[in-house]
Amino acid sequence: MIVEASAATIGLALAPPAPRIRDLLTITARPEIVSLAGGLPDPDLIPRTRIREAGAEALARPDAVQYTETAGWFGLREVIAARESAAGSRSVDPREVVVTHGSQQALSLLAQVLLDPGATVVVEEPAYTGALQVFRLAEARILTVPLDADGMRTDRLEELLDAGERPALVHTVSNFHNPGSATMSAARRRHLAALADTYGFWVIEDDPYGEIWFDAAPPAPVADHSDRVIRLSSASKILAPALRVGWLRAPRPVCAAVELVKQGADLCGSTLTQRIAAVMLSDGPWLAGHLERIRGAYGARAAAVAGAFGDRVSATVIGGGMFCWLEFRDGTDTAALLEAALDHGVAFVPGSAFAVGGDHRATARLCFTTNDESALAEAVDRLAAAHASADRRRTQSTQS
Amino acid sequence: MIVEASAATIGLALAPPAPRIRDLLTITARPEIVSLAGGLPDPDLIPRTRIREAGAEALARPDAVQYTETAGWFGLREVIAARESAAGSRSVDPREVVVTHGSQQALSLLAQVLLDPGATVVVEEPAYTGALQVFRLAEARILTVPLDADGMRTDRLEELLDAGERPALVHTVSNFHNPGSATMSAARRRHLAALADTYGFWVIEDDPYGEIWFDAAPPAPVADHSDRVIRLSSASKILAPALRVGWLRAPRPVCAAVELVKQGADLCGSTLTQRIAAVMLSDGPWLAGHLERIRGAYGARAAAVAGAFGDRVSATVIGGGMFCWLEFRDGTDTAALLEAALDHGVAFVPGSAFAVGGDHRATARLCFTTNDESALAEAVDRLAAAHASADRRRTQSTQS
Repeated sequence: MIVEASAATIGLALAPPAPRIRDLLTITARPEIVSLAGGLPDPDLIPRTRIREAGAEALARPDAVQYTETAGWFGLREVIAARESAAGSRSVDPREVVVTHGSQQALSLLAQVLLDPGATVVVEEPAYTGALQVFRLAEARILTVPLDADGMRTDRLEELLDAGERPALVHTVSNFHNPGSATMSAARRRHLAALADTYGFWVIEDDPYGEIWFDAAPPAPVADHSDRVIRLSSASKILAPALRVGWLRAPRPVCAAVELVKQGADLCGSTLTQRIAAVMLSDGPWLAGHLERIRGAYGARAAAVAGAFGDRVSATVIGGGMFCWLEFRDGTDTAALLEAALDHGVAFVPGSAFAVGGDHRATARLCFTTNDESALAEAVDRLAAAHASADRRRTQSTQS
Repeated sequence: MIVEASAATIGLALAPPAPRIRDLLTITARPEIVSLAGGLPDPDLIPRTRIREAGAEALARPDAVQYTETAGWFGLREVIAARESAAGSRSVDPREVVVTHGSQQALSLLAQVLLDPGATVVVEEPAYTGALQVFRLAEARILTVPLDADGMRTDRLEELLDAGERPALVHTVSNFHNPGSATMSAARRRHLAALADTYGFWVIEDDPYGEIWFDAAPPAPVADHSDRVIRLSSASKILAPALRVGWLRAPRPVCAAVELVKQGADLCGSTLTQRIAAVMLSDGPWLAGHLERIRGAYGARAAAVAGAFGDRVSATVIGGGMFCWLEFRDGTDTAALLEAALDHGVAFVPGSAFAVGGDHRATARLCFTTNDESALAEAVDRLAAAHASADRRRTQSTQS
């Protein structure tokens, strides 16, 4: 009986649909394929030498190898608070910061703290799958509002609220959306914050890409406009994923509750990687140069994929981040297109991987970070050829 | 309404009793106090130079700074599987190993995978508080069986099973218990494994201290005797807590379920610290010398506290690990003793901190790892003086 109960629990844990992206990553590991399917930063832009130096600096002290505070090494929380203060108009106290094991852990701990089973959560459609997985495991009731070129359609959120929906939280990737590429406009940020104040829900402003802008920095954070906004970010995309240093900025009662749940989850993070991150994030001149290098490289790569599929698609302007989002105007089924694309030696992620309830058969995400411009130009050519062949196949099957 | 619901959720998360040990740690940070209250490895025995070298070696490769597999970098899983195979009579496959963010995360993920709310969990009394916290957050129904000098009283577990209790899992710290110091005998290991097979519960064999033995290695792991045993261990006590490298070894369906839950919890661990741990754990000659050094140092320190309180206490023989467990025969209330001890410049943790249901007013835990022998001798003298003064105070209050 116990065995069955255990098996049932395991079954429950296995129940959410297996992320198809992971299978795709296996397929696309083949060397002849130019993969735009990943979502990783370019390892050649990760500053390994600086990490080694910062590690040696940190390791000069015995407490760099000991356990640290559950909420994160205070020195890093000070650095993060200073950067958060500089990024907006509010002064952030280090005690309003909790360091997490990547920002994925921040999502997971917040779900434990803020959600009861059955609570309503609003996400954007297309959705960031990492957040979706957390909210599903928390047994939340998930509603969506669409994204357009100005980010979350807050007017649609207001309609849900007018219709009586009372979400516990609303999740948004405010800058350079994954997968949708869009950045929320300043007006919508104010609107979202005002709705949060009026209806008393929490906003998770999930912002791993905000510093990777190409021409202009994004508008001031949503958290500038309301105390009900919890901001998440991470060192993964600007320094290195392997540091596993993410953080949340939130009102202190939320931080206290997150800290308590984190104590059960893993006691504390790594003092060593937190000190490495602190050394690097507080070295202003070095960091400015490093960010400029990433922005320049990714900006050039974004430009190289921006014309993919020409006027067959409406593509969101890529202002930063790592992704290009395409919506086909010609009825292309991107799952079928992917089959043809793999035959032509190029991969991407069909939009259906990011669908919650909506129909994303005609959308696709291209990641431009891990190939150089010439490989990306080749990929764009292969995609065009794949589209032409998929088109021919479709025409034939329609005629037969 | 939403605000209230959120506040209620936060309240729920805060509901478990705040760990008193953490307050005690703050008090005992005062320099004039010799603290036996902690539970940390000695930072001077953490091999910082070797960590720096291993880090430099790992950082020669770009994939040392990228994301890694959710179940852990496969190279480290191979090293752990080889060491687990060598420690027992069964051959362990790397795919039966999941690397976790310290073994605390293994406990937390296993609770999500194996426990439904209300499930019955058996722990030892006195209990490891980190496990207790996880099981309480999982809303488990917690039963206890006592510990004696031969570890968990498996006869008492059998009585519970005979009485109809059907636990989903049984948690044991099999070697050099925290706080109880005892090591489970070979006979009880076989008994526990047989009960698991008969009744179909899972055993979590939580073993962070097994390699820190002083005179003789502990008996073969419980996992040698049954497929229903999940073994947990960690690099925290033998290499460094700051690596945050723990692991579990379990049947593959359990590993698969844990991997899925870990994906939501934090995507993956740190490739960098996992590679550092792999370099160090696979360097046999270096590791043997390093373990010998830890065993020698902690063994000498254990000997220095072994005589504390003389024949007023019955003390479990300290065969390894980090803790000395005392049971007063003279009715000493250790909470009152602690007050006197702090006045005399010495601190320890009263047994009540590890109590689940039982009466632990007359027990205490001393940690001997972070002071040298002369400081420990001084601590033992201060404890004797504190006991005498507490005794006088008690006699006076009885007479007045």
